[in-house]
Amino acid sequence: MDKLKKGLDAIRTLAAQTAWPQGTTPMAAESDGSEGFWPAGFSSAAVESSIRYSGRSDLMLLVSREPATAAGVFTTNRCCAAPVVLSREAVAANPEAMRAIVCNSGNANAATGARGMDDARAMAAMTADALGIDPGSVIVSSTGVIGELLPMEKVGAGIAALPAALQPSSGLDAAMAIMTTDTFPKFFHLTVALSGGTARISGIAKGSGMIHPNMATMLSFLATDASLSPTLLGELLSAANEKSFNAITVDGDTSTNDMAVLLAGGSGPAVKPGSRDAELFGEALEALMTFLAKLIVIDGEGATKLVEVRIEGARSDADARLAAMTIAQSSLVKTAIHGEDANWGRIIAAAGRSGAEFREEELELFFDDLAILKRGLDADFSEEEAAEVLRRPSYAITLRLGDGEGSAKVWTCDLSKEYVEINGSYRS
Amino acid sequence: MDKLKKGLDAIRTLAAQTAWPQGTTPMAAESDGSEGFWPAGFSSAAVESSIRYSGRSDLMLLVSREPATAAGVFTTNRCCAAPVVLSREAVAANPEAMRAIVCNSGNANAATGARGMDDARAMAAMTADALGIDPGSVIVSSTGVIGELLPMEKVGAGIAALPAALQPSSGLDAAMAIMTTDTFPKFFHLTVALSGGTARISGIAKGSGMIHPNMATMLSFLATDASLSPTLLGELLSAANEKSFNAITVDGDTSTNDMAVLLAGGSGPAVKPGSRDAELFGEALEALMTFLAKLIVIDGEGATKLVEVRIEGARSDADARLAAMTIAQSSLVKTAIHGEDANWGRIIAAAGRSGAEFREEELELFFDDLAILKRGLDADFSEEEAAEVLRRPSYAITLRLGDGEGSAKVWTCDLSKEYVEINGSYRS
Repeated sequence: MDKLKKGLDAIRTLAAQTAWPQGTTPMAAESDGSEGFWPAGFSSAAVESSIRYSGRSDLMLLVSREPATAAGVFTTNRCCAAPVVLSREAVAANPEAMRAIVCNSGNANAATGARGMDDARAMAAMTADALGIDPGSVIVSSTGVIGELLPMEKVGAGIAALPAALQPSSGLDAAMAIMTTDTFPKFFHLTVALSGGTARISGIAKGSGMIHPNMATMLSFLATDASLSPTLLGELLSAANEKSFNAITVDGDTSTNDMAVLLAGGSGPAVKPGSRDAELFGEALEALMTFLAKLIVIDGEGATKLVEVRIEGARSDADARLAAMTIAQSSLVKTAIHGEDANWGRIIAAAGRSGAEFREEELELFFDDLAILKRGLDADFSEEEAAEVLRRPSYAITLRLGDGEGSAKVWTCDLSKEYVEINGSYRS
Repeated sequence: MDKLKKGLDAIRTLAAQTAWPQGTTPMAAESDGSEGFWPAGFSSAAVESSIRYSGRSDLMLLVSREPATAAGVFTTNRCCAAPVVLSREAVAANPEAMRAIVCNSGNANAATGARGMDDARAMAAMTADALGIDPGSVIVSSTGVIGELLPMEKVGAGIAALPAALQPSSGLDAAMAIMTTDTFPKFFHLTVALSGGTARISGIAKGSGMIHPNMATMLSFLATDASLSPTLLGELLSAANEKSFNAITVDGDTSTNDMAVLLAGGSGPAVKPGSRDAELFGEALEALMTFLAKLIVIDGEGATKLVEVRIEGARSDADARLAAMTIAQSSLVKTAIHGEDANWGRIIAAAGRSGAEFREEELELFFDDLAILKRGLDADFSEEEAAEVLRRPSYAITLRLGDGEGSAKVWTCDLSKEYVEINGSYRS
């Protein structure tokens, strides 16, 4: 299975490069996600319902044995899809007793009007029915083509088959079922040592096209056995989300369907607000979500490079983020990254139009550790040394704007001909 | 000369499709820009100075016989190039007595610090010297690679050769000299009948990559024989600029060097503030600048389509513009345009994240006259009819947001593999 092999290669390479927070233990390098993936109390299933694709699974269920606390972050797109509307309401109404997440790929159930809302509600009801739980405890998610009605007969048949397919150990199957133009499944877990014992956090994600912040263009479903209040869970999820899924960009588009949802089953150690445990849990969650976010960038449509854009010395974090995102989204920067061209002019030109405040003559630019631009617009660097950095599959572009305290870090990929190819023909 | 042929084809096709304002007479279809191009009192020259390119002209001079009133609009990029700083000051200080515009291609003199400012001043001084005029009456412009110092010896030799090359009739030579990645020269002129006689407005432009609003990423030099105060000239130029050069996007990047400058020589009819003549002149100017702006989009890097994005029924013009620009810039929309795919979901998803206010169920979408989406998210259209529109080299995407009075119109191109190819290797 090529997609799995590609995913495992990407996961293992990135895991080996990652500085994991203190107290955490990442998924073992030899794991392929098919055994012992979910925290205690969770199980998942994947089936093939032929909504759009054939010969592959396209419907996923994640179930918590006990009522779980839940938190979610959702797309900011005004045209948000029916399942987003429904799930946002469900999490808000019932944050202490969620039981399941059901998600289909191939059809986004977006721009489908009142009928789409009915279909999303029907997905929740059918899932509740199949599991014998309350429809209000089901989170519904869809991803795929916009503007087509869901084939509800196929969806219904698929949902009916899900409970029998449930098994407690495999994250891989769930991660495969939610893929659209993704070229590999994205999954990872880690444990974190807390005062009351070890907690597990596990997550799957999908991404590829339309990846952009403001809860943009990706799905991630996360589960932990730790016990947290909905308020604390929501705070930790939002904070981690800002530094992870909201700090990546593939093409600047924000989708109608994005969501990241975290369920806490409660059988593991308790995490109290304001405690050291809350800090440790938050760091572990951010590390896991950042890991999944980077996998999304690595698998950006047509992407061949993972580039970290760091802004330092800005007047504020907000200014730093503005400059970082403008550079990370610039088509001219992204094509130069693809062409392995040390075109630093495009980077400072992007910073210049970002709205961030700085003085041109104070700029300093680095490709990894190599100084490209020193203060006073002194660009006396070796083209050969720059080319060596730019050939790396992953490196950092660091731009110091001045002597301020503001900083930001975002991740982007290159813009390749394959991006155009994939997106010129996705719908057909 | 392939570039000229390509340019003439584009100019003639677009001119034939254009609804010219009342009272105007566009450049004759048989003109190739080499005869009778500039208004009375203006002449231009182009020479080869080998700044970066060889075997082509790269230095241009436009001269007014008499002191001309001048107006300019300049890039908003914080990293604006030295010639932009200098020329903005020159126009502000001396708006009633400008004499010349000198422009080189191949090197942007941007991100070049104090030395770059010295070089821009030297270009003004050398031009003034060669022509026997005041350095403060010279507008300096550069376009090309960022971050490299100008080879001033070559620039000086080229400038010294310019006066002898001056001739009153050819806009073509000037338009050729300012090209960078442009694949064809952009030039046009028209006359407008005013109460005091007929005025001529002529202009050249360059564009290609990095085309985006906020005085972005293009150069245009315009001249008229009409007589206008600097204040009125500035108002009319700014208003026309908003509807033309600031209403196009190729890749969303805003360059360090953009400017549009209009010189009014004063030998022709007088145009008074608040008069019907001012309206007519403004309409003619906007038509000319819109024409040049569309040529820039048609020649967008790798572009194969010119698409007009119209927003109607918005709550305000500002909302309409927000939605129009977000759609026009979306990589997903632009790749779908390239792939001739009726992917209307991407269009409304882009509108949804634009910040413009609307209710999804009130949206109406048209490709030219073909209704794609009717109110209530009713997308019952013929794929064959849609495909027929999408195969056209030029068409309009019209999105009605609701029943408001706001509207906007912008122009964009498709995103092709050639864009990536051109921009992955521009610097090297």
